[in-house]
Amino acid sequence: MPQYEKIIDLATRKGFWFPSAEIYKGPAGFYDYGPLGAALKRNIIELWRKNFVEADGMLEIDGSPIMPPKVFEASGHLSSFQDPLTECMKCKSIYRADKLIQDVTKKIVPEAMKAEEFDKLIKQNKIYCTKCKGELAKVRMSNLMVKIYFGPKDNELMYFRPETCQSIFVDFQKIYNIMRAKLPIGFAQVGLMCRNEISPRQGLFRMRQATQMEAEVFFNPKNEDKFEKYDKYKKYKVNLALLGKENKIIEITLGDAVKKKIFKSKIEAYYLALLMQFYECLGIKKENMRLREIGPEEKPFYAKSAWDFEILTSLGWTEIVANHYRADHDLKSHSKGSNQDLSVIDGEEKVLPWVWEDSFGVDRTVFAVFDNAYNEESVNKETRIVLKLDKKLAPYDIAVFPLVNKDKIPELSEEVYEMLKCCYACFYDDSGSIGKRYRRMDEIGTPFCITIDYDSLKKKDVTVRDRDTMKQDRVKIKDLCDYLYKQYIK
Amino acid sequence: MPQYEKIIDLATRKGFWFPSAEIYKGPAGFYDYGPLGAALKRNIIELWRKNFVEADGMLEIDGSPIMPPKVFEASGHLSSFQDPLTECMKCKSIYRADKLIQDVTKKIVPEAMKAEEFDKLIKQNKIYCTKCKGELAKVRMSNLMVKIYFGPKDNELMYFRPETCQSIFVDFQKIYNIMRAKLPIGFAQVGLMCRNEISPRQGLFRMRQATQMEAEVFFNPKNEDKFEKYDKYKKYKVNLALLGKENKIIEITLGDAVKKKIFKSKIEAYYLALLMQFYECLGIKKENMRLREIGPEEKPFYAKSAWDFEILTSLGWTEIVANHYRADHDLKSHSKGSNQDLSVIDGEEKVLPWVWEDSFGVDRTVFAVFDNAYNEESVNKETRIVLKLDKKLAPYDIAVFPLVNKDKIPELSEEVYEMLKCCYACFYDDSGSIGKRYRRMDEIGTPFCITIDYDSLKKKDVTVRDRDTMKQDRVKIKDLCDYLYKQYIK
Repeated sequence: MPQYEKIIDLATRKGFWFPSAEIYKGPAGFYDYGPLGAALKRNIIELWRKNFVEADGMLEIDGSPIMPPKVFEASGHLSSFQDPLTECMKCKSIYRADKLIQDVTKKIVPEAMKAEEFDKLIKQNKIYCTKCKGELAKVRMSNLMVKIYFGPKDNELMYFRPETCQSIFVDFQKIYNIMRAKLPIGFAQVGLMCRNEISPRQGLFRMRQATQMEAEVFFNPKNEDKFEKYDKYKKYKVNLALLGKENKIIEITLGDAVKKKIFKSKIEAYYLALLMQFYECLGIKKENMRLREIGPEEKPFYAKSAWDFEILTSLGWTEIVANHYRADHDLKSHSKGSNQDLSVIDGEEKVLPWVWEDSFGVDRTVFAVFDNAYNEESVNKETRIVLKLDKKLAPYDIAVFPLVNKDKIPELSEEVYEMLKCCYACFYDDSGSIGKRYRRMDEIGTPFCITIDYDSLKKKDVTVRDRDTMKQDRVKIKDLCDYLYKQYIK
Repeated sequence: MPQYEKIIDLATRKGFWFPSAEIYKGPAGFYDYGPLGAALKRNIIELWRKNFVEADGMLEIDGSPIMPPKVFEASGHLSSFQDPLTECMKCKSIYRADKLIQDVTKKIVPEAMKAEEFDKLIKQNKIYCTKCKGELAKVRMSNLMVKIYFGPKDNELMYFRPETCQSIFVDFQKIYNIMRAKLPIGFAQVGLMCRNEISPRQGLFRMRQATQMEAEVFFNPKNEDKFEKYDKYKKYKVNLALLGKENKIIEITLGDAVKKKIFKSKIEAYYLALLMQFYECLGIKKENMRLREIGPEEKPFYAKSAWDFEILTSLGWTEIVANHYRADHDLKSHSKGSNQDLSVIDGEEKVLPWVWEDSFGVDRTVFAVFDNAYNEESVNKETRIVLKLDKKLAPYDIAVFPLVNKDKIPELSEEVYEMLKCCYACFYDDSGSIGKRYRRMDEIGTPFCITIDYDSLKKKDVTVRDRDTMKQDRVKIKDLCDYLYKQYIK
């Protein structure tokens, strides 16, 4: 089985995630997380909140994902957030023109071209329907915005936001003033977004509904290089794939990258470093991450610069976080759209802040973390599948196994389970051989398995087995909390 | 100012929550939470996860809120989840017939009546348009389901779930088997839902988009009184408002209520107690809670019994959690709808589990907690507004104040701030008098304020001031973590 399929097989088998409304054969692009996947996703979000949002002193809001048309008129989404579509005139199959041309020509096709330019490429490259060889209709631009109707006659149009950041821009001035904030200041939000993807595919990668974690950093453009937080990260090394040299990853300190003007400013440099550090903390190896520079053809018109943060997975290098230097685009658009001056006071000065954005795909992060944690090892001529998740992310911290279901062993096991349950996510398993129980826990990434046996009754101790090394320690029950605590601190 | 308006004034002034897309005058029924409200909401959800979901050993899933029509055909929502609407024939104002009749007659009107029955009541009571006295059109039933369109031609109809539980029912069998669960077992979920409310009103109480926390407990109806967890709660006292005697709250132990057959079973009794205990843990006083028995006219047709959990707020007794004994309704409907047998194995037996449901309004809980925490006290002839939130719920745990912004006091203050930041949500405030800073923190419920003054420089100690008692302690900086830890344990 190819690596990607093995990973999806494990995820599905253990219910980490699976297609939504499966018993009704629901449409593609919607996923449900089972208990293990939901815990993994939650743990990732929690770590982001702690190590990215709170560590940076950002303000986190929680805005409604459904917003009125005026918001997206102003932001430009209604006019320009679109995919080029073409239809087979014979069998009526629908294609995204850019992806189709890319698949056939094996060359990157800029997303931002006009319909006629796609038509030209289709003609030049003699592209036909891949299913029936039929001729393709003229390309039309199809909006990705998802419509929702309210009101007694179902005719009050609203939109499901296509990215979480719009509530941040719309609320910015109010929150800035209420919280008595000072520039530069990051605003953060975790939440749902929806896109009318025509061909949702690759599992958690191109969904119609997904979760984002976004950070919008507002700053005074005059002061973007007076940014003290950067100093601590000067020596932090980032991996870059520069424009035109995507295949050669360079490792460079922030300080050198700023000196060489690879980054627009200290703000850009610092937040890209913070981002990479966050993924290190999720247990992704540094050699499996890179920041790919986005060229003028690929990036949105308003962005002064853009970097895709990519992780090497079984699907190759995949985009996990999109980062944009958005400058004054957002607050200017909403000032105009709402006919209100959205400037704020910075020291003595009135200023319309500029924006740096990090936009994290949560579902993509779940996949990348799961994929990178997947391991197969040969143990006694059998294959051991083990999910080497960082301890902080594992759905269960500890499993408790009574060796047998008699002779007071279950009673002692339950005592141990109840004791640990207060501080750790615990799983109690009393069926099958201990070896089988170990394998089940290895597959879902549980860092520690604790077995209670006949000796435990006499000596008041248990066997603690480590997921990664398979090493077993004998630990007194009274010392168990202390023992585990130390394992987590390390 | 009436109490309710004072509370909304504080919430708005501090940005706990406010209408979404305010700068565009967005439609009613959608709210955003600013940083303080978002933290309060998150803390409530976290406590629920710990003290309700995990304490009971439930499995938490995270399903897509957008689902295909077949799900809601099977669940009955498409045919029967509706409001009776009437329109003024003159000025075109639209009313919910049940609410209009109730407002005019001051009598409870069952929701589940037919259109003609509403027409009859309107005629009998001589009810006209309250705005222009115009005649009202015949009542029509309007569905509350919210439509969303996908696909290249915007014509693939999906629905936004009107309650989170449907993903639980649809995924139940799969998850039960994967997780090797045993009956009885609770499934939980936190997430968004949408309803096409015609007259969204009362702030967080009748929103078009809201957050729910739901628990669906699956059990074998044969064994519902063999339920050991109940035993621990036998002596727990609940407050009941029984049918026909709503104005007299009785306090009764679970044991007695089961004996008197007030509750259908031990399962019903136990989960209602667990629920009440959870709200105690949120800091709601027991005398401000009650379980109101729902009569046959008010409850859904499939429910064998129903209880509204209500909290006394400045709006009167308000519904916060709806609890239904749903019996076999859900799994039977989805077995039929999907043409699949959704039974599971319980011991030696194949069984289609029955369901007990607790459906928590998260936004309503936020309001009730905020409302119940609001206090006004007279201090030195001035009014002190103080939000006496339970310590576990406060958006900030601690505020740090340098007495002055010079003479090395800011440096020491920042040291203290950095030290506490690792374990607590901290706010640094260096502007205005200390008295003013205290008041600002009182209004947002910060339990402790720490001031660093000239003595601190010499003696390495600080003043810790308690929000509720306003008592001040002088504490050595080296003992600060220990001191605070003890305050939280108490």
